[in-house]
Amino acid sequence: MEIRSVDNQNVIKWEKLRMKKYRDEYGLFIVQQKHMIGEAISRGLLETLLILEGKENPFDHDAITVSEKVMKKLSGNVSLNDCLGICKIAEPELPIGTSYIILENVQDPGNVGTIIRTACSFGYDAVILTGNCASLYNEKTIQSTQGALFHIPVLTMDFREAAERLKTMGVRLFATTLSSVSYLTDVRKCDRYALVFGNEGQGMSNEAVSLCDENIKIEMSGFESLNVAVACGICAHYFKNSLK
Amino acid sequence: MEIRSVDNQNVIKWEKLRMKKYRDEYGLFIVQQKHMIGEAISRGLLETLLILEGKENPFDHDAITVSEKVMKKLSGNVSLNDCLGICKIAEPELPIGTSYIILENVQDPGNVGTIIRTACSFGYDAVILTGNCASLYNEKTIQSTQGALFHIPVLTMDFREAAERLKTMGVRLFATTLSSVSYLTDVRKCDRYALVFGNEGQGMSNEAVSLCDENIKIEMSGFESLNVAVACGICAHYFKNSLK
Repeated sequence: MEIRSVDNQNVIKWEKLRMKKYRDEYGLFIVQQKHMIGEAISRGLLETLLILEGKENPFDHDAITVSEKVMKKLSGNVSLNDCLGICKIAEPELPIGTSYIILENVQDPGNVGTIIRTACSFGYDAVILTGNCASLYNEKTIQSTQGALFHIPVLTMDFREAAERLKTMGVRLFATTLSSVSYLTDVRKCDRYALVFGNEGQGMSNEAVSLCDENIKIEMSGFESLNVAVACGICAHYFKNSLK
Repeated sequence: MEIRSVDNQNVIKWEKLRMKKYRDEYGLFIVQQKHMIGEAISRGLLETLLILEGKENPFDHDAITVSEKVMKKLSGNVSLNDCLGICKIAEPELPIGTSYIILENVQDPGNVGTIIRTACSFGYDAVILTGNCASLYNEKTIQSTQGALFHIPVLTMDFREAAERLKTMGVRLFATTLSSVSYLTDVRKCDRYALVFGNEGQGMSNEAVSLCDENIKIEMSGFESLNVAVACGICAHYFKNSLK
């Protein structure tokens, strides 16, 4: 099959996937990086594979050949992709596990994606996006996950609901705030935990902090300012390797 | 004083500061964020302060009023700044200290800036940029430092020179690579150390690794992929707080 016209009905529909509203409506999103398309295939999440005319299909998957104009329209990039995947949005259940990352109002898609990548690399059971976080299926978020979004459940829910469900499972919630009086390195060994990180500028909301069991901060000297994905990396590593 | 025309000789010169070549030539760079302009003033590094016409000067520093057109031309942003600082490039000496971060070919300005912010927050003595790193005075790098670049010496030099000078000072160099057989949590207490991080895709060069004393990796499970600024944050925190 081949599509050459940007007025093709499918192209018009796929282009809309660059907006969250339509991703939610169609349950689909676009993946532009070749290695991530491979991951989507292995997870059974690739719906349609598009290959630029004149290029080889590197995957063992049916493909539609598209013209340069169509590829440009769908990728929105200056550089031209050789392939592009239209993927199905998975709707994972909250898994029963021992370690979770919760984000509240983390707005930069690069931060959200980087945190998903970190959580996956340290074997966390799920990432939960609450409040007004950047969209998981934003192009920049997907790129920053480096494919991790196909390897770890990422759920979107209300903070209160997440807190209640995790507490029912015996999970202890650790808020991270600059105003905490307890330090990360003071935390005692704990079987089931969720680490919560708030907005880049404002931090966590008071309501979310009040729903947590403990409130911790990372020890710093002087400048006292960390990027939220860095703070998450430090805590995520510490909880997995250094709790005493 | 007031500048209304984008053809003004100073405006033409300042606009060139968006390119590395001219920043090096003039020894100047642009700071766009209000709170960072304040930091530049407190460090004696502000050369010229520009205020948008009709806006108050929030600083105790002489200012030049500029028109909307001039401000837009200099900031290159869609949104219009109320103020903008032309700052002097500091050329710090390598300080005698106990802890350093060295970057080799880290190319994303967001990563370089975030690492400077982290190093500053954990009280490292200096950050050393080697090889082909993103420019320190790139707009995105500056923004990602969140002002830390005014609080920690950041030097640019050849990797071999940095390694030799630090070793002369009794500093032990720790390479970070995915292929290492030693883990971060195995590192023994050490009085003076430098942590080295390589390129986002390729990691450290073999040559740089061979100039280091030890080679470590962060323990991960499964996915094994961390953003370089996250990896740096984990190591920087661990060395300051958890070495046994």
